[in-house]
Amino acid sequence: MTIHAERRNSLAATLQERDLAGAFIGNLINVRYLTGFTGSNGALWLNSEGSAVFLTDGRYKDQAADEVIGIEHEITRELTKQSAARMQSGQWAVETHALSVDAYALLAEATPGATLVSLQRRVEQLREVKDETEIETLRRACALSTRALEGLIAGPLVGRSERDIARDLESRMYELGAEAIAFDTILATGPNSAIPHHAPTDRLVETGDLLKMDFGARVDGYHADCTRTFVAGKAADWQREIYTAVQEAQAAGLDQLRDGIPVAKSLESVRKVLESAGWLESFTTGLGHGVGLQIHEDPFITNRDAGKMEPRTVMTMEPGIYLPGRGGVRIEDTVVVTSGAPEVLTMMTKDLLELA
Amino acid sequence: MTIHAERRNSLAATLQERDLAGAFIGNLINVRYLTGFTGSNGALWLNSEGSAVFLTDGRYKDQAADEVIGIEHEITRELTKQSAARMQSGQWAVETHALSVDAYALLAEATPGATLVSLQRRVEQLREVKDETEIETLRRACALSTRALEGLIAGPLVGRSERDIARDLESRMYELGAEAIAFDTILATGPNSAIPHHAPTDRLVETGDLLKMDFGARVDGYHADCTRTFVAGKAADWQREIYTAVQEAQAAGLDQLRDGIPVAKSLESVRKVLESAGWLESFTTGLGHGVGLQIHEDPFITNRDAGKMEPRTVMTMEPGIYLPGRGGVRIEDTVVVTSGAPEVLTMMTKDLLELA
Repeated sequence: MTIHAERRNSLAATLQERDLAGAFIGNLINVRYLTGFTGSNGALWLNSEGSAVFLTDGRYKDQAADEVIGIEHEITRELTKQSAARMQSGQWAVETHALSVDAYALLAEATPGATLVSLQRRVEQLREVKDETEIETLRRACALSTRALEGLIAGPLVGRSERDIARDLESRMYELGAEAIAFDTILATGPNSAIPHHAPTDRLVETGDLLKMDFGARVDGYHADCTRTFVAGKAADWQREIYTAVQEAQAAGLDQLRDGIPVAKSLESVRKVLESAGWLESFTTGLGHGVGLQIHEDPFITNRDAGKMEPRTVMTMEPGIYLPGRGGVRIEDTVVVTSGAPEVLTMMTKDLLELA
Repeated sequence: MTIHAERRNSLAATLQERDLAGAFIGNLINVRYLTGFTGSNGALWLNSEGSAVFLTDGRYKDQAADEVIGIEHEITRELTKQSAARMQSGQWAVETHALSVDAYALLAEATPGATLVSLQRRVEQLREVKDETEIETLRRACALSTRALEGLIAGPLVGRSERDIARDLESRMYELGAEAIAFDTILATGPNSAIPHHAPTDRLVETGDLLKMDFGARVDGYHADCTRTFVAGKAADWQREIYTAVQEAQAAGLDQLRDGIPVAKSLESVRKVLESAGWLESFTTGLGHGVGLQIHEDPFITNRDAGKMEPRTVMTMEPGIYLPGRGGVRIEDTVVVTSGAPEVLTMMTKDLLELA
């Protein structure tokens, strides 16, 4: 049985538990997860007995034949309408968190005999726990990302623009086998490093700058997410102080990412470290999130109840301190949750490096 | 008055016409269009008198201060909820084509005294007709894209992989000033050129291949979209035949993209050319679409009623012939609609080039 058939079976089992006739999946990332389809337009109809139909338009006929194995294909421009034709009675689940109000109304109109209910984030939940192939792909994506960064920082950076350095880092990832850049590279220097999500500018690196680099490669659809912060030249005392606080906070957070521990517990630990160091007010961003087919996916580390960590969940851990007008530090790893310490996929030193 | 204030005023005027109290804009591209904000999380509340509040979270506080001028800012993690607090009575418009069913339910719950109605695609409609700054930006994006392609094809391509050539083309766009790649580059060679949306592989270019390249640069948020098809070595008769048919079809289609002509008219003209050449069955994709802050945006060229073309609308025109297992040809320009022949922004020869 293919991995995609196994995933569809897991979904069908939950549909059976809820006494649903089936589900319509229109969220493209979830369609990919359940079918293997990598194109830009597709949908999946499946019933609770495990029968499934993959729908896409004519542009993707051949690609779908290669990628989507073992289920019926329907080539149409009307994915929703054609799926609706198979949903004429009983309770059907739809992705109310992703489906627009208008698309839902169309579907409801086309399924007069059926009742539509929410699938909730059931597929997203299945995606949280990765299988071995997914983890191996993420390992490759992360390994090539950190290798690219190591190459980049071996060369001189002072005098170069943020934009130039970001492009250099991205080129290195491509050369090492990235199929794409996982997200817009954040390359923030000097005072710009205080901006959590900074887009690279023409600012030139000066000696004394903090250099914050948040970046990653995409491999076979899976995303790496890594941040390291450096100093150009010798670190000032205040830079070393905030760096050490972030480094300790990140270690404390990672330590809580393990089987059975509530997701929110790591936030508590990180906040405690930053509070006792006197920097809690300057930690203004999210702490971490799941990563896989999307750069940000479930579970998100928040104060709210997100359940407990499960083995083989892949997470980021990324505390930071941001001092407007001066600079900021963030350290981020992508890791795999285990029953012990997490497996760090973005293997690269987290000591403060003073670069040429 | 800033261009963004003008756009908000246009929107407010349509709200007044419909006797609405105001609107909540959560679709990030529309938020950017109406405020100038380029971050990844933001929303806009505005009332029909033209008062407006921009909402974003703490990560984007400083960036929003730079980018979003002349209206109140609210920094919060609860964009929807905080907007809802200002929508406690009267009729409010929301983007039902973009808002998820769940997000809509939350908003409805938080606005018990208000009635929510659909804004429809009103902001997307405003975005169809570009102002001079937008057109100039698109000109730059298209000009650097075609310059990159001209550089690429000056060098030898036979023996290189699709992936390698795609990366080379992308690097050239970056070097010429692209801020990003507008969409995943389609670089399809030999039989792969018959796949309309083909992702580059390790296939090596051979003499006799058709080489289809669909690509573009993004500049200041605006997307270029261009396709050219070449032959490696001397063109075979069948290649020249389908190329000529596509070239003539594309010219016929472009000729219909002018002020006052129904959007669907170009499809009719293109189909007529392909039908008389005997290739209509092999034209299996969409013909064209608006392009701007999104790579695909309104209006779309379809059989359905999409109204009439208006001056300063920026469109693609991209007919193709796809012969599974053999190869395909597509020719695509990005153009500006005028009262006469459209202004072609992707200025580069459309004659069949035989490359080394």
